[in-house]
Parts: sequence; C-alpha cells; structure tokens
Amino acid sequence: MEAAIPNHILNKIDELWTEEVDFLQEISRFPSVSGKEKALQAFLADYFISELDMDVDRFTPDVKEIADHPGFSPPEWGYEESDVVIAKQAAPEVPKGKSLIFQGHVDVVSPEPVSLWSSDPWVPVLRDGKMYGRGVADMKAGVTAMIFAYKAIKSAGYKPGAHFMLQSVVDEERTGNGALSALAKGYTADGALIPEPFGLRPAKAQVGSLWFRITINTAMKDESINQVVNVVERGTVIISALQKYEKMMNERPKHSAFKDMPHPVDINIGTFHAGDFPSNVPVKAVMEGRVGLYPGQSVEAVKKELKEWVLEAADQDPWLAKQPPEITFFGFHAEGAVMDDQSVFFKTLDNAHETILQQPAERTVLSSTTDARFFNLYYDIPATCYGPEGGNFHEIDEWIDLQSVKQVTKVYAEFLSNWCGLISKES
Amino acid sequence: MEAAIPNHILNKIDELWTEEVDFLQEISRFPSVSGKEKALQAFLADYFISELDMDVDRFTPDVKEIADHPGFSPPEWGYEESDVVIAKQAAPEVPKGKSLIFQGHVDVVSPEPVSLWSSDPWVPVLRDGKMYGRGVADMKAGVTAMIFAYKAIKSAGYKPGAHFMLQSVVDEERTGNGALSALAKGYTADGALIPEPFGLRPAKAQVGSLWFRITINTAMKDESINQVVNVVERGTVIISALQKYEKMMNERPKHSAFKDMPHPVDINIGTFHAGDFPSNVPVKAVMEGRVGLYPGQSVEAVKKELKEWVLEAADQDPWLAKQPPEITFFGFHAEGAVMDDQSVFFKTLDNAHETILQQPAERTVLSSTTDARFFNLYYDIPATCYGPEGGNFHEIDEWIDLQSVKQVTKVYAEFLSNWCGLISKES
Repeated sequence: MEAAIPNHILNKIDELWTEEVDFLQEISRFPSVSGKEKALQAFLADYFISELDMDVDRFTPDVKEIADHPGFSPPEWGYEESDVVIAKQAAPEVPKGKSLIFQGHVDVVSPEPVSLWSSDPWVPVLRDGKMYGRGVADMKAGVTAMIFAYKAIKSAGYKPGAHFMLQSVVDEERTGNGALSALAKGYTADGALIPEPFGLRPAKAQVGSLWFRITINTAMKDESINQVVNVVERGTVIISALQKYEKMMNERPKHSAFKDMPHPVDINIGTFHAGDFPSNVPVKAVMEGRVGLYPGQSVEAVKKELKEWVLEAADQDPWLAKQPPEITFFGFHAEGAVMDDQSVFFKTLDNAHETILQQPAERTVLSSTTDARFFNLYYDIPATCYGPEGGNFHEIDEWIDLQSVKQVTKVYAEFLSNWCGLISKES
Repeated sequence: MEAAIPNHILNKIDELWTEEVDFLQEISRFPSVSGKEKALQAFLADYFISELDMDVDRFTPDVKEIADHPGFSPPEWGYEESDVVIAKQAAPEVPKGKSLIFQGHVDVVSPEPVSLWSSDPWVPVLRDGKMYGRGVADMKAGVTAMIFAYKAIKSAGYKPGAHFMLQSVVDEERTGNGALSALAKGYTADGALIPEPFGLRPAKAQVGSLWFRITINTAMKDESINQVVNVVERGTVIISALQKYEKMMNERPKHSAFKDMPHPVDINIGTFHAGDFPSNVPVKAVMEGRVGLYPGQSVEAVKKELKEWVLEAADQDPWLAKQPPEITFFGFHAEGAVMDDQSVFFKTLDNAHETILQQPAERTVLSSTTDARFFNLYYDIPATCYGPEGGNFHEIDEWIDLQSVKQVTKVYAEFLSNWCGLISKES
C-alpha cells in the first residue's frame, strides 16, 4: 500500500532515530516501579511542554472518584507518587478527522532478583540490535515510539487534524487505575492505541486478571509432636490446589477468541513468604498471585469459584480443615475484553501496518490484561494494543527489538495521519 | 532430704521474690534478639557490679579465635552488638569446694509475627501465675533464677567457698558462639549449670542442630508455556523431600538416649521466601531450616547425607534436574551430646532438687541443642540444663510458670552450697 503520510515525515523518523533510541534509554533509567512513577512523569510532562509544545494536565488517581466504576481495581497503596500525565493538542476549528489517544503506561514491575540480570536493569544497554533493561519492552519502547511518531509529524511541519492526546498513565501493572482515572475524568477520544510490545500485531482479545492473597495463619498445634503445625508444609496443599484449578480452567471449553491458545487462563503464584528464623516453626504464610479470566466471566464469579476450590482442598487436609486459609482479593479486578477487529479503527491500523511493513497485519490475543479493556468495555471507544517486538516481560533480562520500535513509530505516524488527518502548520 | 543450705538463705529467696519477679519482667522488656544483646548485657554487667559486687569481664566473640574449634558454628553476622558478660566471685585462699559456673543466654528468637500474640511480646505480663513474653522462658526466667540464687546467698551473709561465675552469654539461638568463646578464653570451672526451661528435669542428652539453606535460583524456561518455571511450585518438590528425609531419619534405629522419643531428629523448614510481585513468575526461592542430629553423628556426615537426599529428589523433577538447587549450611553446626548422669555433678543436682522439691528428679532428653554441649564435648566439664517450667518456646505467647522459677532459684542456691561450699562472710 502507499503511505497516506507525506514521505518526509517517515524520513523525519529516520532522522530522529538516534535521538529516539537515546530517549528510550533515558526514560528506561527511571526506576518507575508501580507507585513510584512521579519522577519519570515529571520528566515527560516537561518534555511534552517544552519539546512538543503541548498542553499538559497532571493529576493523581482519586480512588473515591473511581471506586464505584465497574472497571475499578481496589489498590492497597496510595497514588501520591503516581501522577497521570495528559498532553493535549487541540483540534483545529474544523477538524479534518477523528480524535485520537496514544496511551502508554510508564510503571514497570519489580526487577528483583536483580542479581540474576546480565546487567543492571536500570542501566539499559544495547546488544545486537536489542535494548535490555527493566521496562524497556513493557512498555517504555512503545511510549517512546508514540511520542516520536508525534514528534516527527510536528518536526516535519504538520499537526493532527483532530483532537489528539499523548497519555502517560500509571499503575497499569497492578490495577489500571491510572488509565481508568483519565477516562473517568473525561479524557476520551474516537479511538485509542496502546503500544504494548506484542510484536506489531493488533490484539483482538485479552483475558482478565484477578489478584488473590491466601494467608495461612495458625496457632494450630500438632499434639503428637508437641509443635505448632508448619505453614510452609501446609502451603503445599494450597499450591497443589491452585495448580489443579489452573488445569481445570484450561480443560473447560475455551472462549472462542482463545481457542488456539493451549492455556489462556493461567494461575501465577507470584509470592510466597513465611517465617523469619530457621529454628522457629513458621506460623504465618502469605502467598499472592494472579488468576486469568475469560471475557464474559465476571470477577465476582471467579472470586467465588477460586475461593470455594481452595477451601475445598483445604478441607481435605486435617490441619487446614481446622483452620482454613483466608482468601482475599486486591489489586487487579480486571475483566477480559474482546475487540471488534472488523471496525474502521482496526482497518485503519491494518492499513497503516501494511503500508509500513509491506505485509498484512496478523492478530494476537493476550493472556494478560492491558489498559485497552477500559476503552472497549466501559466507554465504547475502539482501542487496541499494537507495539514493538520484545521479550522477557516481567522477567530477567527484559529486551526490546529496536528495529521494531522504529517500525511502530512509523505505523503510529501513518495511523495518526489517516485517523486524524494532517494539517500543514504553514497552512 | 534435708537442706545443706542454711534455712535463712531459702527464706531470703522468699523475701526477695517480688524483686526477682520484677527483675525477670525488667530484663524481658529488652528486645534482645540474637545479635542485639548489647543493651541487656550492659544492664546485667552493671547489675553484677553494683548489686552483686562481682568482677565483670566483657568481650564480643572473636570469630578468628574460635573458627578452628570443633564446636564452632559459622555465623553470617557480626558480633558488634553481642557482648558476653562474665561475672566472677574469686575463690577463698583455701577453697571449700569445687568451682562452678551458672550460665544463661540472654538472646531470644524473633517474636514475629507479633500480630498473633495475645499481648506485646516485649511487655511481659502476669496471668494466673505465669509470665508471658518473648524470652521469658527461653531463658530469662532461668537467668533470673541463677542470679537470685547467688543474690540470696550473698544477702544472707555468705559467699561461695570456691571460684564462682555468673555467665551471661549470647547468640545461643543461632550458633552458641557466645558460650564457646567464653570457654575458649579460659572461663572454665569444675561444673556448669544452665537453667534452660525444661521443667526442673536435668537433661541427660541433647540432639545436635544444623542449619541449612536451599536456594532454587533459575532462569529455566518452560517452552511449552513460554514462561519461566515457577520456583514456588518447584519448592514443593524440596519440601516433600525434606519431609521424607525426616521420616527416614526417625525410622532408623534410635540413639539409645532417645529411644522413648517418637521423633528425636526433626527437620524444621523455618523460612520460605520467593517473589515480590503477584503477576511476576518468581525465579528465586530461598528456604532455611534446621535438621537435628544424634550424638555421635558428625555434622559433616549429616551435611553430605542431606545434600545427597535433596539433590536426588531434585533429580527426579524435570526442571530441578536441569538446574539443581544450591544447598549450603550456616549458623548451627552443633553436635549432639550425652551427659554422664551418674556423675557426682548430677548426684549433687539430684540431691538439691530432692531437697527443695521433696521428690526425686526425673530426667529429660532434649530434641534441641543447648550450650551445655560445649562443656561436655570439648572441655570435659560436667554440665547440664536444669531450669523452670515453661512453654511455647520459639512460638507465640511464650510463657513461664513463676512458681517453678522460685523452685529453681532455691535448687540453684542449694546446689551451689553443696558444690562450692559456703563461707560466712563474717568468718
């Protein structure tokens, strides 16, 4: 296909490429773990104002404002250090196209255990066309691409023909309350692209995600050995129950969007902590994790099912039957979502992809949640994830393929040109 | 039996009883967790000097001095805050009896999780003749009893007829290096009593104790699910192997001293820590624990056996076979010990018990280690544990029976009178 975008915008992206890589490296040095996004958000707000000449709104998510929203996830933490940054480019008096949001989250997950990394996760390094570091893929490369798509358009002497926003959001990795707050405050548009790093494939569905905490908290005494019951040993009963629950979930008929995925709805036991002294019998164990849910499954139904499943397993154990584990839920209460991938929005994205990549866009379905759900489920705004190619998200030695970042930058510029239309600034 | 001790010494113990309980309460307020004994040791050193008119030596254990000692346990911590306090009462020019050490450790184990306690573990409270608090039983009540036995003798106008020491030692709960250092520096005697809280029963044997750490540390990837292998799930393989090892150990012919104990040599998995984020797959799990060993079993042999056992189990697991756990040892490297309970020393203790309690002393054998091992194994000094009645050692709501503390105080005074002889200070 031929580009709708003037060629010198694409050339501008090539010209700015070194600067773009430097920018990615710079923002990846901020240890913006969820809840600690403020410093990076201040940097980006400044950048949007001084480099991109945009109007910027900043606010921290207000839990009271969104607590009754069906997309709300209950946090156990404050948002004092979690500013949302909205950079706006107003529409011309007579818009040429539809309004648009490019949105990315700047929070990243913990890099621990840092000792296992090949190099410092906060000092991103380049090796063989890849950049390595915590958050480079998920999703600072995408954030960089969306910013530089806009920067190239601007530098080439154009501006969007409709209202346009760059949204840098927070706490995506624990709740999505950053993106939800922005929508609840009215920062909406006719479409939204999120450059999550799924290999230049538009996502047409994503599972939901629910966080759980299981606490074994006991002063149960095994009189036969005159000792309290060891909660680490009891924990194996719960671990095994969760593994069986995962197996059961994936043996059920699959949601049609996920029919080709071997196990779309996973359980991850992310943490297990018990005891603080080798010679003491540990009496409190806490494990936290995440369970996936299909689009259409309600969060409340999965809570109930998981709880009953675990308690039933506990009931088979002589000790846990006497003192059942506490099962609570916090953080992610995210429903699954299916996107209408036959929409004009997807067609525009497919075209932009094909124009730049010279081959048709595939599709992907996600076994994790993203902020795209809010737009689709609660605001009837077409939105999807489309971003660069990377790997080891949430793992050691996370990486992003730089060539794909440049491609995504161009696809985003092409998409914007088509969706919003372009206005020459001289005109 | 009739008391060798003048009756007014026993009366003095009754007289001082309120003060003794206050003293126990006062020293139990010090949060002297192993490694943080200094403040309490300063208090006790002052007390020995100003209240008991003793000469006091203070030093911190010097690892270099004891590193080659067969009783040494390798610490992973410093001893900057762990003073050993030795209070001495010199022998008369012509000793009347044998020299004696009363020794107690002032370090206590962690009270966590504090939230499970009925009341603050550092604010000892009295209920129904018991005192509750971290360390009241293990072993500040014993320390109090040994001090007040001596104080009563002194207040009644007597002093020991031989060289006598009150030794307040440290790091008993992790290594025993406090007591070992004192012996290595030459603070020896003809016998030693340690008032550990085993219910007024002299201990005639104790198991050894070895601390282990097992680390599952992996970047193993399960390609079938394109995810790293979850170390919490792999941890269950190790937990199960340790449970089987414990079972195997206790199915072996028992050491004769422990033949009536159902499971003398336990494994305790004291800690299990993995992961820091519910949505990340945890890639490093660390568990620490303690394994018991019989008298006569060498620490090195148990290390080797445990290591081989765990690695063999790991080898049966498809993932752990590829990346076997690391198994290391730290802290307790304590051999088991058998005391000669037909010795003059035990007879003297039996007599003192019978004199005060009006019934014969039973015996106990210990499924845990104590500092008594050093005297018996490496210095040929008769020594045992004999102390008050308590419960929930190393657990929530630790308690000590106060009546038994008074009895032990009297037994210690009686023992000292017999073992060292008494000299009237006026003579």
